Amino acid sequence: MMYQARRNRQRSLTWTMPAPAVSTPLAHRARAHPLVDEAENLHLREYESRVKASFGRIVPVLRKISSLQHEEDFVARSQEIARQELGIELPAHVLERAWIDGLDMRRLFAASVFEIYHRFCDDFFRSDPLGMDRQREGEFEQFLHECGFHLMDISPCADGRLAHLVRYVLRLPYRVVRRKSYAGALFDVEDSIQKWVETELLRYREGRPNTADMPTRYLKVVAYHFSESDPHHEGCAAHGSNTVKAATAGIERLYAFQRAIENSFCCGASISLLMIGVNTDNDAIRVHVPDPDGQMSVERFIDVAQIYGATSGLSPSEARQNITALIREQQPAVTEGMARMIERLVIGNLSQIDYVRSYHGGGYSDIGHAEQFIGVGIGFEEIQLRNMTYFAYLRTVEEAATDVDVGVRIFQRLNTSRGLPIPIVVRFDYHGQVPGARERAIEHCERVSRALHERYGELERRGLLHTLRVIRDCGSGDVIEILGSSLDGPVTIDGSGA
Amino acid sequence: MMYQARRNRQRSLTWTMPAPAVSTPLAHRARAHPLVDEAENLHLREYESRVKASFGRIVPVLRKISSLQHEEDFVARSQEIARQELGIELPAHVLERAWIDGLDMRRLFAASVFEIYHRFCDDFFRSDPLGMDRQREGEFEQFLHECGFHLMDISPCADGRLAHLVRYVLRLPYRVVRRKSYAGALFDVEDSIQKWVETELLRYREGRPNTADMPTRYLKVVAYHFSESDPHHEGCAAHGSNTVKAATAGIERLYAFQRAIENSFCCGASISLLMIGVNTDNDAIRVHVPDPDGQMSVERFIDVAQIYGATSGLSPSEARQNITALIREQQPAVTEGMARMIERLVIGNLSQIDYVRSYHGGGYSDIGHAEQFIGVGIGFEEIQLRNMTYFAYLRTVEEAATDVDVGVRIFQRLNTSRGLPIPIVVRFDYHGQVPGARERAIEHCERVSRALHERYGELERRGLLHTLRVIRDCGSGDVIEILGSSLDGPVTIDGSGA
Repeated sequence: MMYQARRNRQRSLTWTMPAPAVSTPLAHRARAHPLVDEAENLHLREYESRVKASFGRIVPVLRKISSLQHEEDFVARSQEIARQELGIELPAHVLERAWIDGLDMRRLFAASVFEIYHRFCDDFFRSDPLGMDRQREGEFEQFLHECGFHLMDISPCADGRLAHLVRYVLRLPYRVVRRKSYAGALFDVEDSIQKWVETELLRYREGRPNTADMPTRYLKVVAYHFSESDPHHEGCAAHGSNTVKAATAGIERLYAFQRAIENSFCCGASISLLMIGVNTDNDAIRVHVPDPDGQMSVERFIDVAQIYGATSGLSPSEARQNITALIREQQPAVTEGMARMIERLVIGNLSQIDYVRSYHGGGYSDIGHAEQFIGVGIGFEEIQLRNMTYFAYLRTVEEAATDVDVGVRIFQRLNTSRGLPIPIVVRFDYHGQVPGARERAIEHCERVSRALHERYGELERRGLLHTLRVIRDCGSGDVIEILGSSLDGPVTIDGSGA
Repeated sequence: MMYQARRNRQRSLTWTMPAPAVSTPLAHRARAHPLVDEAENLHLREYESRVKASFGRIVPVLRKISSLQHEEDFVARSQEIARQELGIELPAHVLERAWIDGLDMRRLFAASVFEIYHRFCDDFFRSDPLGMDRQREGEFEQFLHECGFHLMDISPCADGRLAHLVRYVLRLPYRVVRRKSYAGALFDVEDSIQKWVETELLRYREGRPNTADMPTRYLKVVAYHFSESDPHHEGCAAHGSNTVKAATAGIERLYAFQRAIENSFCCGASISLLMIGVNTDNDAIRVHVPDPDGQMSVERFIDVAQIYGATSGLSPSEARQNITALIREQQPAVTEGMARMIERLVIGNLSQIDYVRSYHGGGYSDIGHAEQFIGVGIGFEEIQLRNMTYFAYLRTVEEAATDVDVGVRIFQRLNTSRGLPIPIVVRFDYHGQVPGARERAIEHCERVSRALHERYGELERRGLLHTLRVIRDCGSGDVIEILGSSLDGPVTIDGSGA
């Protein structure tokens, strides 16, 4: 009964496990690119290593515990090991049943993932390890306005290899940029129209983030992805690992959103568009530079990996000039504001390219999927790390069945194939100031969990699918609230054996 | 294959079946109430009789056809009868198989309901039989503004006995009033917030329906219902046929919406509230008169049936004065605008009370459910008749499972119990000017149909559930577009016998 509903619960245990030593940049590197923020790279690396290590220790620790299951003081020793090496408590009722049915490793694994996730969340919302300070966030908002935009709304693919897009790949403040992920980056046009409407109304009524008479626009960005080293297998699953298809679909969806706004609202209503492609091997991006009407080409883009190479020997100001020139060369009609925005994204990405060179030998060892869990629902602001979560933004499983199916297929390869269950975090954020919103978030959580267990009933019956139900008052800045999990239920016959 | 996709299809057959003679007001009546619009009553009655008769003829005609199924020229004679008496064509492939498996009456019944529904829709959107002319609609909009409101948004219960609420019970122009039905009138607060936001933005950007500086409000109305003659059985199913519970839940939902707007938006944002109760025996309403803050009481209301009795001997102006006094007596603090609005609803309802007295002997013979089909999705502007449709406003079956379950249970009593299938019309309206909106409406239709067939698989396998898939460009004023139906598929073994 680890995941009983507990509101505003104070956690007694803190995130105490020892952080691993941070690996220093590889020795053979000459020097960083002149525009790279090395201090930030070090900081981001420390965080990534620490979190990844905590998830990475689960399997070795459970293996060790498994080997002890016939010893006399098994329960006590297991808890001791879990506390020391994972910093968590394992569900006692599972350990205590080990002598009867054997140890239910599937339940222990899911419980460990959920508990590590819980601690990771608490750390994120309490210590703000990836936050830029409010001043830098304010500067970015100011910069956005100067470029002619009042809101930046990014839809990356739901693929876990893009989960770090905002904070790492583009080096943007995650609290200022809106992110909604969809399989294939195929965002929901009606949902985006709704967000546009809300944004406009706030500008009119409350002058937030700026007043409606300012000639700024809503900037919608699509981020598709591809793998340069293995384009036909490790690209975007939703587009059959076809880069041209992924980019074409992204542009079409952007145009559809733009036309929807222009046709539905009068008085020159429109939005600005931008599309980037991410090489998931090394996080280098392409930017498809738009003309003033938002028109872009699938084939024509600037390639930041090339820019990195071409400008690494220059002075910072020369490198900048070079980038500016390249953007204008690619699309001479680009607006001044859009060019500045792209320049900023390019420079942010140079740091990330350097990051991957420094800490991952220039290309990730996990070029394929290696996510720890699936996240579904609305929220997940804390997920800013690569290959940690396959995330599908959804209100109902019915509407997002394709997105969830893609995730479950990925985890059948990653986990089920080696006998481990698929951990799914069902999460609904709500606005605490709206009466009944918390109750409705709970209802959504329960409903979506039921729908998942129904849809993947066969996996569930074999103990290969577990769900954690989580809500969060996103207005409060508070930690998450755990409602419960499928581990709370009675141990079923089929699901009881490891 | 009657329901192949056919866009902008011109229908060759017109709505030619003979209208039944309209019954004249019962002889024993002395005279109408002084405020009753007798001409409108006659017009509304003509329409109701005509439509109800067309659905009512289905079973007798199919009985007749059934008795012919072993005759030589069965197919030709059946079609002849269907054309003459129902004005429709029956699906030939079903008739032609009759000599092999026996006549599949379930398919014939569903096909007939769907075809009559199709014709009824075409008539509605082509001839506008219930429309008030644009001038009267404009007058009502003007009146709404004068009362201090810029939009009237009614959420009645999904119960088919309230489907005629807007045009009949309250005598309002259905194109001007927004209606979204939910089981128990428990409307979705988030959906309503979204509509409020859209409405405000149009006021700010386009000055529609009035400019944002006008001190008018969004008026949200809840309509619960009860049965005076059989309160414990024929009341609202969603509230266990408990009138106090239904009214209490309605008030709570209204307050929640109001607080949500007040807490989410600054600068004095608020909405106006109103709740009415409908006695489904005779359509007489109660109005819970609100104070200026929208506060209402479950126990305190004005009762229009009583008003009808108390004022029927007066002159029109005396009756009006009487009504005004009663409203103020009930809630002395009521605003001038709200009092005027309530007066208008009361006077509209007096006509409806008279209508039921004139044409239904003062109380409906079908005091219980007698719907012809279930309608689910978004749209159904054409459904303005009592007890014709159980309607659930929904985006997904997953979210609205309770609403749909209530409807299916009603139809298990109405249809399944006598061997007839449950006909469900799945409908999604869309805005044609939004690119891709039609394609997405089609996707919604297909998805919801699939979800229904999954959820009620047992009924489907027995041939007891059929779905029609329909979309409509609601911006165009055009007729509906039929995408297909479950009757198109191959005849299954289980579902093939009547």
